[in-house]
Parts: sequence; C-alpha cells; structure tokens
Amino acid sequence: MDEEHTPAPGRLMSGEMAEQPRVLAHLAERREDIVATVRGVLPRPLRGIVLVARGSSDHAAVYGRYVLEAACGLPVALAAPSLHTLYGVSGRYGGYLAVATSQSGRTPEIVTVLEHMQQAGATGVAVTNDASSPLADAADAVVSLEAGEERAVPATKTFTAQLAALAFLAEAVGEPPWDHRVWQALPDAVEQVLGDPGAAEPAAAVIGDAGGLLVAGRGYLYAAALEVALKLKETARVLAQGYSAADLRHGPIAVVERHFPVVLLATSGPAWHDMESLAGAVSDRGADVVRIAPGGDLPLGEQMTEPMAAFPAAVRGQQLAHTLALHRGLDPDHPEGLHKVTATR
Amino acid sequence: MDEEHTPAPGRLMSGEMAEQPRVLAHLAERREDIVATVRGVLPRPLRGIVLVARGSSDHAAVYGRYVLEAACGLPVALAAPSLHTLYGVSGRYGGYLAVATSQSGRTPEIVTVLEHMQQAGATGVAVTNDASSPLADAADAVVSLEAGEERAVPATKTFTAQLAALAFLAEAVGEPPWDHRVWQALPDAVEQVLGDPGAAEPAAAVIGDAGGLLVAGRGYLYAAALEVALKLKETARVLAQGYSAADLRHGPIAVVERHFPVVLLATSGPAWHDMESLAGAVSDRGADVVRIAPGGDLPLGEQMTEPMAAFPAAVRGQQLAHTLALHRGLDPDHPEGLHKVTATR
Repeated sequence: MDEEHTPAPGRLMSGEMAEQPRVLAHLAERREDIVATVRGVLPRPLRGIVLVARGSSDHAAVYGRYVLEAACGLPVALAAPSLHTLYGVSGRYGGYLAVATSQSGRTPEIVTVLEHMQQAGATGVAVTNDASSPLADAADAVVSLEAGEERAVPATKTFTAQLAALAFLAEAVGEPPWDHRVWQALPDAVEQVLGDPGAAEPAAAVIGDAGGLLVAGRGYLYAAALEVALKLKETARVLAQGYSAADLRHGPIAVVERHFPVVLLATSGPAWHDMESLAGAVSDRGADVVRIAPGGDLPLGEQMTEPMAAFPAAVRGQQLAHTLALHRGLDPDHPEGLHKVTATR
Repeated sequence: MDEEHTPAPGRLMSGEMAEQPRVLAHLAERREDIVATVRGVLPRPLRGIVLVARGSSDHAAVYGRYVLEAACGLPVALAAPSLHTLYGVSGRYGGYLAVATSQSGRTPEIVTVLEHMQQAGATGVAVTNDASSPLADAADAVVSLEAGEERAVPATKTFTAQLAALAFLAEAVGEPPWDHRVWQALPDAVEQVLGDPGAAEPAAAVIGDAGGLLVAGRGYLYAAALEVALKLKETARVLAQGYSAADLRHGPIAVVERHFPVVLLATSGPAWHDMESLAGAVSDRGADVVRIAPGGDLPLGEQMTEPMAAFPAAVRGQQLAHTLALHRGLDPDHPEGLHKVTATR
C-alpha cells in the first residue's frame, strides 16, 4: 500500500502536537491586534459574558470562563444551547458579549446559538480556526487561530490555540492575573514538555488496561483536567471523567478503590494545597496516582503560574492519551465512529 | 446487635425516597409565599443570575440554570468557586441575583462564595434544608426546603425539593414554560414511579458488574442525567458519567463499545428526537441501553412536559442506584468514605 496513505497510527496527532510552540508563538505575535479587534466591538458598559462551545472547544471555554471573570469581575456563563436550538427561549442579551468557540466553525448548533444570542442583543465573537466558516460569517468579530489545518480527529494544537485566544479576550475585557511577557515564554515551556515524550510511557503503564479513571484539577487547571479526560476517552477509549478537586470530594470519590487510576494536575499556586490534600485522600483509598505537576510523573516546569500552566498540562495529557492509545493498539488519529466536524444541531 | 442501630442496608435511602411526594406537596403549598419572598429581594433591574453549589445541589443548580434562563431570558452562570475562595477576584455583581444551594447549608466553601458575591453587590438567596444554617444566616433571603432531616448520605428528597425550589425561583424572575397547576399533579406522578420499584431490578441486571457507564439527557433532563450518574457513583461505586446528548457526540461516544451500558433519559417534547437519534447511535456501537422514558425500562408517565419530567426521572435514577448497590452487596445509605456534609473550602 502507498505509504503516504497509510501513515503510522498517531502520526497526524503527534505532528500536530509538535506544532504547538509555533502556533502559540504566531498567536503571541498577533496578540495586540486580537485584543484591539475585540475591544473595538465590546458593548459599553459590558453587562456580562456568555460562552458557546462543545467538546474540546467547550473545555477551552471553561478556561475562558475563569480568565474572563478574573479579568473583568463579571459572572461568566456557559451557554445552554438547547434553550436556543430546541426551546426557542426569548433572550435578553443586550450588553452581553457572546463568544462562540469552534475549531471548524461548522457545527450547525454553535452557529445557530450565536446567531440567536446576537438577535437577542449580544455582540458576537467567533474564535475559530477557519476565518471563512459559517461561524465566522455570523459573528460581529472573528478571532482566527491560524493554527493550520488540523487533520487528526482529537484536537490538540487548536485546543491550546483556543486557550491563548480566550486569554487574549480576557486582556480585552479587563486586567487578567498575568503580565503580557508570559506569552513570550510560553512556546518554550510547551517545547520543553514536547521534548520529553518518554515520561508518558510509565504513566500510561500505570493506567494499563483500566476501564475507567478520574482526572482532577482545580481553578485554572480545571479546564485542562476536563480536556485531558476527553483526550483519553477519544483516543484510548477509557472512560476518563474530569473533575474539579472540590467536586470530586462531593460524592464521586466513592468510585476510587484499590488500583483505580487518578490523574492529578497541579502547579505551585493557590490551588496547590487543595490538590495535595486530594492526592492524599485518593492515595488513602489505594488509588494509583499519576501526577502532571512540577516534579511529577509527567513533569511541568517550575516557573509557571496556574493560568499559564494550563497549556503545558494540556500537552502532557495529549502525550498520555497518545501513548496509552498506542499501548492499546488503537490509532489516536482516527477514533472509531468519530469525525472531525460533529454535526449537532 | 440492637436492630435500631443496624437497619437493613439502604433502608434510610429508600425511606427518604418514599417521602418525596409529601415533601413536594408541602413545597407546592408554600409556593406562593416562596415566590413572593424572592420577588421581595430581587434587584431591579435584574442584570443576571449566578448559581453556587456542589455535588447533588450543583445538579439541581444545572436544572435551575435552564428554568431560570427560560423564565427571564438572561444568561445564567454557574459559579466558579475558586475565583472567590482561592484567587480573590474582585467581583462586579451589582444587579445580580446569587442563588446558593446546599442541603445542609454547612459547606464552608458555599457560604464563603455567597458572602463574597454579596460583598461584590449581588443579592443572595439561600436554598437549603436548614433555615438556621450558616448559609441561611449569610443570605439576604432564604428558601427553606422543609424536607425533614436527611440521614442517608446520598441526597434524594432534598434533591427533588431543590428542583422544585429553583423552579419557584424561575416563577419569581419571569415566565417559565409551565402552568402553576403542574405542582398539584407532580406528587402523584412521583408516587406512581415510587409504586413501581420492581422495574429497577432488570435495569440493574443489565448494568451488572460493569465498571463504567454513561448517562445522557438533553435540555431540561440534562440535570437529571448528571444526578442519576452521581447517585450511581455514590451508591454502587460504578464510574457513571452524565452528559448532554450533544456533548456525548463530541468525542466521549468513543468509549461506547459492545455491552457498554448507556442510560438514556427522555420524555415527549422538543428533545425527544435527539434522544432517539442518540439511542440509535449507541445501539449501533453495541451498547446495552437502559431507558428512563415513557414506555421505557424504567417507565415515566406519558403526561409530563420535559421540565416536570426531571422529577420522576431523578426518582427512577434513585431506584436504579439503590437497587444496583444492593445487587453489589453495598449499603447505599453509607458509602465508604463519604460524609453527609462535605467540608470543601
């Protein structure tokens, strides 16, 4: 068979993972333009913010939910799409910024919801990798990721690009908890993680053939925990559920028994203590813990604050998912029954 | 041993489940007073709504998120507690209604977040089963569930009571998609489901000793799907993940293979078609489907609209969780390592 048409399993995904430092550096170069574009359409006064997304993009939106509220102090809502697509609720969105995030810009549901919100008074921004997509056409302003085509079904480079784009939106609406110089340092931090793929081998071996596992983070790393869980589900077909550390304690921890795998995401910062405490609690129940953290099984650099650590932590999860899928004889590029554009309405 | 101190496993939970028609009827009697209390403190104009909760209460809050937005048209946000407890974000919550839901009213984190929002300008309402709790003390207004003490660790009667209380809040802020006469009919609909506990036996047998499963609903039944999944985790120690039907298609469906159990919640209404389509998609992958629906494995009455079907659907999930736990030799009243009040901060 023609080699060009039968690449080794996971080659698309690993190739796109490797592009992340370049994609993030390119976004960093365009940061001031993106911030200015969003500022140019912001409702004044801004009454609130609502985010619309599904899948990996929805996990980027969860990150956006944190950084946007941290920057502007207003509560940020994640949309309930069915209110718009199924139930025909009459919205009152005047003064609201509606941010729709979709890699392809072609999920019909996301386009419909953004249009509905704009008709109800919102100013709409599309965050997408296709500036000529229906979503981009519908929006008042477009933040184009310019990440290059993504061919593997699991989103990787477009996910971290979405995190950066939503962080730039936070800069546009207020004062986020970082200095703009972090964007120069970020590509190297991601490159450093990508240069150490071997760490995923023993971590994947800990998970082995488990049928289920939990992934937990807190605060700015919660969104990354959700995304790591989704990557593991999509590629390795393991039922991985993402949680905030606090939510995990309110009931779900009951499923943790001896040798149940738990992946924990942490870095130094305000959430560190809570994550250490959770590590103790699940270890007491006999869990096999895999840490994505400075000095952990899948190490992160020491120097990153929590909002910035979401990027390399997500990349560590990509490595873990990719490696575990190959261990299981699966092709992470093409999960059975999934398509690159999911046509929910 | 003293029989009073060693009740049969699951007796507390089943006893509290059986109280639900009475608890709901008592709330229905107090409906107008509760609506008036909330209207009396509403910010005017109302700029937005934010909900604060964890665990089962957080799933009630997801239901509240739908019915409140359906009633008033404003985007409704679920709080990110760590922004308040860990990161000290300065909020701008003037004109916002903040609704904190907690059975005990004693989770420190929930009290702290509500206080922080009120200091930032929000009007705070506590929805709790303890009108003398710290949460009730902190709030501007209290909606007391008056469900009677709940002793089993898994919340049952307080969960459906919270759903009703949040629906009353929706009536206080606008025009929800139901007629107030539904509240007279609801206790009987729940009683009808409670009178048919045997249906849970074959459904539990389908799940058997599976290590993981998915639970899906859409729209007004999404919150019930999340709660059914949590009940199964808490009592039967099975990794059950709740999803909206649309989210499930954006990646997680990859984990569904032959004989993987999928629990689907549906009733006649706008979401029915989407749920039928999902049932077909997971059946095509070989899933063992358990339906909580009119005419399903765990039947619901035919007459209920989607917002009201959330109540009997949640009760069907309680029956399934209780039965599966007993099948597995576990005591649903006292899941190992869980406590009635979870002291997250």
